[in-house]
Amino acid sequence: MVMNQSPSTTTVPASSPLREAIRAAVESVRADTPMAQSFTNFVTINLVANAQLAAGGTAAMSFLPDDVIDIAAISGATYINVGTLLPFYKDALGEITKALHEKRHRWVLDPVAAGLGATRTRILDGMRDVPPAVVRANASEILTLESMWNPEHAGPADDGAHGPAGVESTDDVDTAARAAERLALYLRSKDAEGLGAVAVSGETDLVTDGKRTYRLPGGDPMMTKITGAGCALGGVVATYLCVADPLVAALAASLLFKRAGERAAAASAGPGSFQTAFLDALWNTDADDVASSTIWEA
Amino acid sequence: MVMNQSPSTTTVPASSPLREAIRAAVESVRADTPMAQSFTNFVTINLVANAQLAAGGTAAMSFLPDDVIDIAAISGATYINVGTLLPFYKDALGEITKALHEKRHRWVLDPVAAGLGATRTRILDGMRDVPPAVVRANASEILTLESMWNPEHAGPADDGAHGPAGVESTDDVDTAARAAERLALYLRSKDAEGLGAVAVSGETDLVTDGKRTYRLPGGDPMMTKITGAGCALGGVVATYLCVADPLVAALAASLLFKRAGERAAAASAGPGSFQTAFLDALWNTDADDVASSTIWEA
Amino acid sequence: MVMNQSPSTTTVPASSPLREAIRAAVESVRADTPMAQSFTNFVTINLVANAQLAAGGTAAMSFLPDDVIDIAAISGATYINVGTLLPFYKDALGEITKALHEKRHRWVLDPVAAGLGATRTRILDGMRDVPPAVVRANASEILTLESMWNPEHAGPADDGAHGPAGVESTDDVDTAARAAERLALYLRSKDAEGLGAVAVSGETDLVTDGKRTYRLPGGDPMMTKITGAGCALGGVVATYLCVADPLVAALAASLLFKRAGERAAAASAGPGSFQTAFLDALWNTDADDVASSTIWEA
Repeated sequence: MVMNQSPSTTTVPASSPLREAIRAAVESVRADTPMAQSFTNFVTINLVANAQLAAGGTAAMSFLPDDVIDIAAISGATYINVGTLLPFYKDALGEITKALHEKRHRWVLDPVAAGLGATRTRILDGMRDVPPAVVRANASEILTLESMWNPEHAGPADDGAHGPAGVESTDDVDTAARAAERLALYLRSKDAEGLGAVAVSGETDLVTDGKRTYRLPGGDPMMTKITGAGCALGGVVATYLCVADPLVAALAASLLFKRAGERAAAASAGPGSFQTAFLDALWNTDADDVASSTIWEA
Repeated sequence: MVMNQSPSTTTVPASSPLREAIRAAVESVRADTPMAQSFTNFVTINLVANAQLAAGGTAAMSFLPDDVIDIAAISGATYINVGTLLPFYKDALGEITKALHEKRHRWVLDPVAAGLGATRTRILDGMRDVPPAVVRANASEILTLESMWNPEHAGPADDGAHGPAGVESTDDVDTAARAAERLALYLRSKDAEGLGAVAVSGETDLVTDGKRTYRLPGGDPMMTKITGAGCALGGVVATYLCVADPLVAALAASLLFKRAGERAAAASAGPGSFQTAFLDALWNTDADDVASSTIWEA
Repeated sequence: MVMNQSPSTTTVPASSPLREAIRAAVESVRADTPMAQSFTNFVTINLVANAQLAAGGTAAMSFLPDDVIDIAAISGATYINVGTLLPFYKDALGEITKALHEKRHRWVLDPVAAGLGATRTRILDGMRDVPPAVVRANASEILTLESMWNPEHAGPADDGAHGPAGVESTDDVDTAARAAERLALYLRSKDAEGLGAVAVSGETDLVTDGKRTYRLPGGDPMMTKITGAGCALGGVVATYLCVADPLVAALAASLLFKRAGERAAAASAGPGSFQTAFLDALWNTDADDVASSTIWEA
């Protein structure tokens, strides 16, 4: 699969300080093994933890507010994923996200299946005033979340028709580009230091802080044939967020996953061996591999 | 291990329309990637999703009634497994199965550990009037469920002594043959189109719609040395149920698992590599391999 | 990594009856496939079950008191792990541990993250009078639990400064040696037959019944780069507890894990292939390999 660069984009040069920041984030995680906490779904919770470890960090998973808030105090960042909801989450996630916001503890949101289920809608709506530092999602979820949260953005999304498709995206990454940028600006408007980023996963990933938007080609279609590559990516964004700002964390994790996906595809014979090889590749891909990746800016 | 054909059975011929229906189901899932939803246990939820993806479908896992009912509307079928119960399930599963029945949304039940725990018994009893299109279970669970549900069948099972053994079967597949046939007829009596099937997993699998009963030899004992081969099979029955009738879905999934188990055993050195190779084999086994399998009818 | 034997220890001789008891436990599990039940966290529940199967046993996982108590009646032992708590656990675990104690059903506790979260503290405090036969934990958790439970031990731990670090230990195994011995004596004081043991996992494992203390060198650092090696060890202690006394069960499981970790490291290229190879190695490591391991006594 060849992804051609659009004529309207430029390639981020080798000398860009952004590449140095990405390299530093990857190396710092390997050196310091920072702990990122997760509140995540039951399907892929094991892969999220193993991906965080393979990237060089450590992992802790919790669901009770008293647990999550205690562990946040000793963690660099937290990952919250709204798949596989249980009844108590609708109160717990409100309490947790409010506490994280008050303590200025940065976190990553994965709004899995945004738009489906009254409880999920209520939970995501409750995060509007205490939003994360990073949102990591597929295009459909970004379009839905942005239309829920953005006060500038009344009425239906202006990017064209879209809708939730369970946990699979029905929309292209490019379709969600404007929504991702608006959402990133919204996150930044709520952050104490004015930082924030949005990562949209797809055939080509898109990462934006609302002012600058990057496209990351590569990866492999087999990443969609194992469950949880997106969740694991969200977890590793949190790992990098322990040592880097939201934009750099989102870029570093997304690039690491693209490179690891390519290596794993070359070393595997189906989705079982792909997952095994993918964790090995997260472990073996070094900071140079990640930082020298193709990055397009537009 | 050689399984000899019983003299009382015949082999389903190569020209049987049943084989063509099985082949079409396998191919249709690969072509259309239908989404099957699951409400399943926490032990094997990841393997269920990965097996559904490896068979060619897509997966979504949910527990809240509002989630499950919303996602059922965009799914071809649903898989419900009663392992690892939580307190809210006893109300949630009643609400969910009633809604699925009203919407004529087909689903697969895996009555894990039927007979153990008062909550599980209450849940399974509550499904009696809104039963699934397919039950996939081991022999002990089929015997227990049939004696709970079948209104024709008062008193203890007439197949001889049996009892629950946790999640492991203590009974042979053949011991449960008559119960499986009666249970299939019961499911059909409640289905809007009069369809239904029961799959009993064991050394030789048994699949019946109550009128015709098939035995599927093969597979490998290593399938019992990883957790969740049976759950994953139930999930893949739901994947095929998106594109085929209950009997064909149960046969196609059971045959795919037998063939994949054999391939995985030949390519592995223990249960870790077996699971990896099994997911690869689910992905790489094609419709011809599945449809040309040995099938005995009796 | 070379671990030198301390001059104050002796090596358990080849002729020791302890080695014969360890060998018998490993063989008995392979021969009898005993069922151990688990109430464990959602992150590593699959690995726990697969490790129990790979060691030769069978697994059943439950959370509702009526389930756990029913299944305990047909299980040889139970494993309880307090990671990923849900709200109902604070009542459920009290009811469950009281019932297990009354029925003299032996169980293994994994006090994950002891010291973090008010709910966890309340749960662990509630187990004080109905404690397990074995505690399996890292050094930090042992220090915390011993200071919570031991009636002889008022005030803060006297082993020096320590504290919880989420799910990772911040303390050395040796730092927790005295606490482990005191905790083992406490467990024995509550056991109907006066038996009990504590296993402290680390670079060198420590296993004690309070009177005799053993150190088990070996293993591989990659065991800390997959999530759940400690949980899986706790689960396999429960598997061996079905056929052996607490001290022998803790030793046999810890030694099996050390040997399997070494084999897996030699056969893998990163954490993904390490986990696969580790399950294969649990399956392929025989009773002689385990029983002939280096064991130091001090």
